[in-house]
Amino acid sequence: MTQRTPSPMDLALAEAEAAAARGEVPVGAVLVDGASGAILARAGNRTEALDDPTAHAEMLAIRAAARQAGAPRLAGCDLYVTLEPCPMCAQAISFARIRRLYYGAEDPKGGGVHHGPRIFDQPSCHHRPEVYDGIGAGPAAQLLQDFFRERR
Amino acid sequence: MTQRTPSPMDLALAEAEAAAARGEVPVGAVLVDGASGAILARAGNRTEALDDPTAHAEMLAIRAAARQAGAPRLAGCDLYVTLEPCPMCAQAISFARIRRLYYGAEDPKGGGVHHGPRIFDQPSCHHRPEVYDGIGAGPAAQLLQDFFRERR
Repeated sequence: MTQRTPSPMDLALAEAEAAAARGEVPVGAVLVDGASGAILARAGNRTEALDDPTAHAEMLAIRAAARQAGAPRLAGCDLYVTLEPCPMCAQAISFARIRRLYYGAEDPKGGGVHHGPRIFDQPSCHHRPEVYDGIGAGPAAQLLQDFFRERR
Repeated sequence: MTQRTPSPMDLALAEAEAAAARGEVPVGAVLVDGASGAILARAGNRTEALDDPTAHAEMLAIRAAARQAGAPRLAGCDLYVTLEPCPMCAQAISFARIRRLYYGAEDPKGGGVHHGPRIFDQPSCHHRPEVYDGIGAGPAAQLLQDFFRERR
């Protein structure tokens, strides 16, 4: 029996599942070196655990990778996220000069890429990543639905 | 000779000056308990020093105060910033449930409150702080002008 190597989005989904298990909104993110495919950082949402309203999965992954890189910019890196990033994370993705953004489920209520302020379409946005959506959208949305159903 | 107690915006300007002295874009922020007036956190921009594209003054102040409070929300707290917050920081201010935002200089190119995506005016923005602008705008803008003139 052969096992395929998990894709970056598989790993991001695993981070989202781990976040749900901790009682956090289940969103996961993985940062990859675009050239080598090496995983640079992976994180799940930790706003409650860290008492930090900015501790979204994307922010934690970007901060960890930038710290490792020794630079506040991550040109040539690609970010995989299970959910459409919010406006805060979208702007951070732009600041970090992320090359490509791959995300799973759409977030019509809280998203900031294809919804709401559409951060990358603002004239004041200096760096716009290539955006690919819908990858792993089914399981990513299911995780969120299950999480919020249990909380109601 | 009497000395007046420095206002929160005076302290934010001092943080901006200290940031400039470190070679960082000179923006400073101070978080205050709205009821007691106590200073909860103060910070200047540290994106270069920390290798962190998210380390804007507002983000560092919010994160420090939330960590101290032991909660990811800072209801009843007011934020003083020398410059109009960018979209990332504006969204973080909303997530943190900041009561009032006082800011100094306008930022037509990078601001996200009265410019660009106008984060608090988005229908998807669940918490909108009261916003007061123009406080200490002169010295805040001068610091930024001097900083960027020297870099050119």
